[in-house]
Amino acid sequence: MSSSCEFESLEKTLESHIPEAELAEVRRILFGKETQKLELPLCAVESAAQRDFELKGFGFRASVEQLRPPRVLRVGLVQHHSVLPTDAPVQEQISAMHRRVGEMAEVAAMCGVNILCFQETWTMPFAFCTREKEPWTEFAESAEDGQTTRFCQELARKHNMVVVSPILEREELSDTLWNTAVVVSNSGNVMGKTRKNHIPRVGDFNESTYYMEGNMGHTVFQTQFGRIAVNICYGRHHPLNWFMFSLNGAEIIFNPSATVGALSEPMWPIEARNAAIANHCFTCAINRVGTEHFKSEFTSGDGKKAHHDFGHFYGSSYVAAPDGSRTPGLSRTRDGLLVVEMDLNLNRQISDKWSFKMTGRYAEYAELLTRAAAPDFKPKIVKE
Amino acid sequence: MSSSCEFESLEKTLESHIPEAELAEVRRILFGKETQKLELPLCAVESAAQRDFELKGFGFRASVEQLRPPRVLRVGLVQHHSVLPTDAPVQEQISAMHRRVGEMAEVAAMCGVNILCFQETWTMPFAFCTREKEPWTEFAESAEDGQTTRFCQELARKHNMVVVSPILEREELSDTLWNTAVVVSNSGNVMGKTRKNHIPRVGDFNESTYYMEGNMGHTVFQTQFGRIAVNICYGRHHPLNWFMFSLNGAEIIFNPSATVGALSEPMWPIEARNAAIANHCFTCAINRVGTEHFKSEFTSGDGKKAHHDFGHFYGSSYVAAPDGSRTPGLSRTRDGLLVVEMDLNLNRQISDKWSFKMTGRYAEYAELLTRAAAPDFKPKIVKE
Repeated sequence: MSSSCEFESLEKTLESHIPEAELAEVRRILFGKETQKLELPLCAVESAAQRDFELKGFGFRASVEQLRPPRVLRVGLVQHHSVLPTDAPVQEQISAMHRRVGEMAEVAAMCGVNILCFQETWTMPFAFCTREKEPWTEFAESAEDGQTTRFCQELARKHNMVVVSPILEREELSDTLWNTAVVVSNSGNVMGKTRKNHIPRVGDFNESTYYMEGNMGHTVFQTQFGRIAVNICYGRHHPLNWFMFSLNGAEIIFNPSATVGALSEPMWPIEARNAAIANHCFTCAINRVGTEHFKSEFTSGDGKKAHHDFGHFYGSSYVAAPDGSRTPGLSRTRDGLLVVEMDLNLNRQISDKWSFKMTGRYAEYAELLTRAAAPDFKPKIVKE
Repeated sequence: MSSSCEFESLEKTLESHIPEAELAEVRRILFGKETQKLELPLCAVESAAQRDFELKGFGFRASVEQLRPPRVLRVGLVQHHSVLPTDAPVQEQISAMHRRVGEMAEVAAMCGVNILCFQETWTMPFAFCTREKEPWTEFAESAEDGQTTRFCQELARKHNMVVVSPILEREELSDTLWNTAVVVSNSGNVMGKTRKNHIPRVGDFNESTYYMEGNMGHTVFQTQFGRIAVNICYGRHHPLNWFMFSLNGAEIIFNPSATVGALSEPMWPIEARNAAIANHCFTCAINRVGTEHFKSEFTSGDGKKAHHDFGHFYGSSYVAAPDGSRTPGLSRTRDGLLVVEMDLNLNRQISDKWSFKMTGRYAEYAELLTRAAAPDFKPKIVKE
């Protein structure tokens, strides 16, 4: 496991060993049509270095059309460690996370980012592995006017940026908890929220003991820069979830996540990218980094001894495009900001080329799925 | 383009340049949990070398259970060139393909293969790019008693093997054409057939001018070795298609294909593998190899000059497992047989671990999809 924590990134290893002539082919097969490296402003590069986080920029191109102007925007993906130890006072942990992400957002603003998205439950350690309720539920806040939403509203106004802020939400009147993403317009207004539609029961992901499946469907947010949606973490394993966001008009689907190496790493480059291909849209996969240690020991339901950490969150945030291409990933180990320029016109261009939505036979699948979901479903199995 | 034809395989390039210590991590991230190399019998290795095709063998392991015995079987995937020039007489082309695939099937038998699957429309060049009907529709045969089905029945009986034979089908009475896969039991009986559910309208894939969308749904075949289904070619871009085969009980889904480098290669490792992950099953992606030249020139709807070939079919056949791991691919350039041993118990073990089908909320999606497929669907879009 230690070697897998230290391994910095697939991309770096490929670049340092494979000769240039073959590297182009390797990249084409692994990552698709090459993304352009973005020239980022010197002040941003210097700030990122000073503040000790990785900064990378890439761009996807679309063809120039006659009747539609390009619809170019920049998204920013933020991945980071839990700043303070998990046993620091709750308010101090939250404030430290605000400060860290605030300085990363400032660099995003220097890079001209229009929509910035943070990782899942970004203000807290991913403490659901412990199955303790105290003090972790204290990190839950109101989506509409909690301190984190107010913090994001300030960021949004200051930088003229849409901010997608995934938090642990508490509905004040009912005391219900949710895993939620708040969408703040670049005007600073809260546009709304969306909730995690699928809740894992896997390994140390004991989230179903904290909150239930989302009840807000597949809302899409029409921002000034494009139509966005948020598919939180485990929802990426469910193709129907991505699909329904797309059918509701999403042009970019963010997937803020928290996931560890031993469990899911080989699936990570596959699922969000498959969703971009299948739905003719952009997808943005974001994962936290680092290993979070908890004071109380806990077991993982795998017959192994009790321990104090969940494993290594491997970062590797990336953006995938509808043509099957993707950016390189951020590091597996460091805080990072990925700035990606995209022209949303690419979505329709690829749709016109591949036509998955036109060849999808959706009305027939609606009937098939209705039958298959019924308790008396008879599978169509041929025997000899 | 020429360099991309010559590039033999991603796996080979990685192995020849990346130091052993890092290679293990690269492989883990790219391919998941390592597959075992299969010891194949010397006679098979020698026959493959003599007959000039690549032979590779890998195995996926499952845990030993107390109440279920292991359900171990071997599948074989065959990828090959069109043997004769495309202007050779039709019967000679078919016979040459039978001979070639027959000798590969013999090696598969030596390797203990239980289910053997060929590439899409394996008895013919992929001539649909020409938009000519003559002589290509002459390659169409009866699924029940055409010469190719009879050939496969002999193979099946001789080698005690299930044979999946994707052909261009002609329904004799109506003269209708279909893109079909015939499933022949290891007893030699035709178990049935299944048809390509989604037809491309992409680049040189003019197939919609030859045959229509399949009308046979998502049949699953209960063979002696396991429940199998066939998702033909372009159906791999449609997550709902894989999903419905899985809901009907498929444990292994074959994806016989014909696809070219410039268009789809970066999607190739993603889609079948995503389907294995999302549906807790094995998927087998098979693509032909080589460049097929046609006497008549044709254009590709891309503003470029008329030409005589479709581009390079890049092979790279592989098998993906429900745990997100996959085998290395066959070569991009050579005929090949991939022998893969799998224990079907892995499907349920991974389902019990990840529970995608239990957390999938299918009844709700059936309603959502029914609404979304209706012409008066109102997307759920929030504006400021």
